Amino acid sequence: MKVTVHRKAHFNAAHRLYRKEWDDTQNENIFGKCSNPNFHGHNYELTVSVTGEIDKKTGFVVDMKILKDLIYDEIETAFDHKNLNVEVDEFKDLNPTAENIAVVIYNKLKPKLEEKLELEVTLYETPRNFVTYKGE
Amino acid sequence: MKVTVHRKAHFNAAHRLYRKEWDDTQNENIFGKCSNPNFHGHNYELTVSVTGEIDKKTGFVVDMKILKDLIYDEIETAFDHKNLNVEVDEFKDLNPTAENIAVVIYNKLKPKLEEKLELEVTLYETPRNFVTYKGE
Amino acid sequence: MKVTVHRKAHFNAAHRLYRKEWDDTQNENIFGKCSNPNFHGHNYELTVSVTGEIDKKTGFVVDMKILKDLIYDEIETAFDHKNLNVEVDEFKDLNPTAENIAVVIYNKLKPKLEEKLELEVTLYETPRNFVTYKGE
Amino acid sequence: MKVTVHRKAHFNAAHRLYRKEWDDTQNENIFGKCSNPNFHGHNYELTVSVTGEIDKKTGFVVDMKILKDLIYDEIETAFDHKNLNVEVDEFKDLNPTAENIAVVIYNKLKPKLEEKLELEVTLYETPRNFVTYKGE
Amino acid sequence: MKVTVHRKAHFNAAHRLYRKEWDDTQNENIFGKCSNPNFHGHNYELTVSVTGEIDKKTGFVVDMKILKDLIYDEIETAFDHKNLNVEVDEFKDLNPTAENIAVVIYNKLKPKLEEKLELEVTLYETPRNFVTYKGE
Amino acid sequence: MKVTVHRKAHFNAAHRLYRKEWDDTQNENIFGKCSNPNFHGHNYELTVSVTGEIDKKTGFVVDMKILKDLIYDEIETAFDHKNLNVEVDEFKDLNPTAENIAVVIYNKLKPKLEEKLELEVTLYETPRNFVTYKGE
Repeated sequence: MKVTVHRKAHFNAAHRLYRKEWDDTQNENIFGKCSNPNFHGHNYELTVSVTGEIDKKTGFVVDMKILKDLIYDEIETAFDHKNLNVEVDEFKDLNPTAENIAVVIYNKLKPKLEEKLELEVTLYETPRNFVTYKGE
Repeated sequence: MKVTVHRKAHFNAAHRLYRKEWDDTQNENIFGKCSNPNFHGHNYELTVSVTGEIDKKTGFVVDMKILKDLIYDEIETAFDHKNLNVEVDEFKDLNPTAENIAVVIYNKLKPKLEEKLELEVTLYETPRNFVTYKGE
Repeated sequence: MKVTVHRKAHFNAAHRLYRKEWDDTQNENIFGKCSNPNFHGHNYELTVSVTGEIDKKTGFVVDMKILKDLIYDEIETAFDHKNLNVEVDEFKDLNPTAENIAVVIYNKLKPKLEEKLELEVTLYETPRNFVTYKGE
Repeated sequence: MKVTVHRKAHFNAAHRLYRKEWDDTQNENIFGKCSNPNFHGHNYELTVSVTGEIDKKTGFVVDMKILKDLIYDEIETAFDHKNLNVEVDEFKDLNPTAENIAVVIYNKLKPKLEEKLELEVTLYETPRNFVTYKGE
Repeated sequence: MKVTVHRKAHFNAAHRLYRKEWDDTQNENIFGKCSNPNFHGHNYELTVSVTGEIDKKTGFVVDMKILKDLIYDEIETAFDHKNLNVEVDEFKDLNPTAENIAVVIYNKLKPKLEEKLELEVTLYETPRNFVTYKGE
Repeated sequence: MKVTVHRKAHFNAAHRLYRKEWDDTQNENIFGKCSNPNFHGHNYELTVSVTGEIDKKTGFVVDMKILKDLIYDEIETAFDHKNLNVEVDEFKDLNPTAENIAVVIYNKLKPKLEEKLELEVTLYETPRNFVTYKGE
């Protein structure tokens, strides 16, 4: 019996979308106002979804408290109230689009989970824009 | 790396559920108060989900602004503040259930997207009733 | 000790905004696409707020079950899956704007409540547009 | 054309997490404050998702009113305002974790649906913790 | 310039509604299934609203971190994962209706705030039922 | 008959909390991680509430389309995808706390509304922190 458990978390961060090798005009053509050199920001809402067998003894797929702490240690501490472009190593050379942030979050969490567990990451950049990544 | 990007939109419309070849009694038996000949209406909340590879240069699966404009041009302009039964061609001979509206939206959007992209449509008819269609 | 208790309810209805004494052009100038003669519709979300003293014996300002039934009998039964312009007497000569619907709801509920209780009505026409009326 | 229709419902219940064969200390070590012997409780928010072909005549995968009534009869009547550990047979020897409650709900609903329909159950224990089960 | 700052919090708890001096039949007549002797429970969602002048130096009415910690220490620690009737002193002889819980929360928080600040407490018992109290 | 009409809008922006005349240590003592010199950001959710008499002819307190356009022109255009500290004149010498942003929004909108209309501004900085200002 495989069940998926989902845990929500959130962080606030600043970012801008741009490519270093493009000049400001080209960046604005592609990324519009998201490329503002002075940055803008979001309340990112994150759902981490873990799929696996229910443990017969506990009735848990994974202990929610452990999952909550893992998200806090790996993601919230690293991203919350940060400037993603300037202060988060993973985005030094990677454009912090919602897509790329979701992939980075997946890659940070996956090795910390038991290998048999499947992982999916959903990230809301705004209440109307969100992305999903499951390592495929 | 395949990521799904989701964009929310909405439109308000009037409709009624009925089959032309059935009389009022039979329509009311099957469709209940949803068959009211004077129409009723909903705030339809739409999520359009597009799955594909992340573009290395932009970090986007699809440019959200382009997706937003596509939904506006194809769906919101066509359905918003309309009577679906009376004013929208696709429902001239098709009962505008949430299921059928989702299929129509899918069929309108799919040809406008690059062929390699997968599409899923989620449509809330009310906060408690919603449907999903992905072309299968 | 005065406490306000709030109860949420909802109904789906069709309507159009227009004045009988204006022609179609004038109605469209003032009411835009809300004046579509074929109607459009909404999921109206209603909050009914009642303020009064806590009853020492029950700990209630008003029994929520009674309030819920009152809203159902007076409002949901009268408005749900209806065409407000065509089927609801109160709007025969009254434009069913959110403002006017809120006033009508207030006027229907107030006489059914004990006179010492204060009433406020909040009505969402869409998730982004809503109105409040408290009989002042 | 396969479409998934989703219907939301809710129930309020008390529960505690524990294993009879463990003493209080061991239960608290594993389940923390969720193991409080005096119980605590939740507003469980349930989404029932049914996948199948659209019926050509009605435009429905399944009649929402029938689905709504089924959820009411099988789940809400059985669980709402109950103590899951004490009053619900399925949890006499089964720890009422969100995972196990979702499986129980699935097992109660599946036999009542036409066999060709697929079922998925999503259960929110809190706004931040939820689980999904689809019988795999 | 008086501004109101609002902070949301939540706690999960079990309770039952009843009066000790009434027998089970009378309690059930008045409180219905909320009077279940085995308890039921809720995810209580709390909004604490504090009104006062903006401090010229900080731009704050009250430091949100201090307000958050106060709510945690006084309310969440006291009520979360508890049985309100059995484990919370204030409800030993007071029926834990939403109205009374809101008054108790107000009375616990008010003396901890600077006297010049006004306080309002909003408590959701379910997503559809909530109450407001501001000490009047 | 006075009714309040509410319109929601939103904007994304970067900011930091600090006082120029304080050094980094003092700023961090008072504002914590909100004082990060590299900025962070939010999805600000705004509700603009306007109270006045219902116009007998239109049934409107204020035309929602005009109110929506006013919010777009005065607030969204000025704040969206901006760095509040760096790019918005009003915050050149004013700490962009939620409280101060709400006051600035009020002061920008009030002179654009008919004088007899009352105005209230509600601003969510995060889903759990929000403020209200009504010019008193």
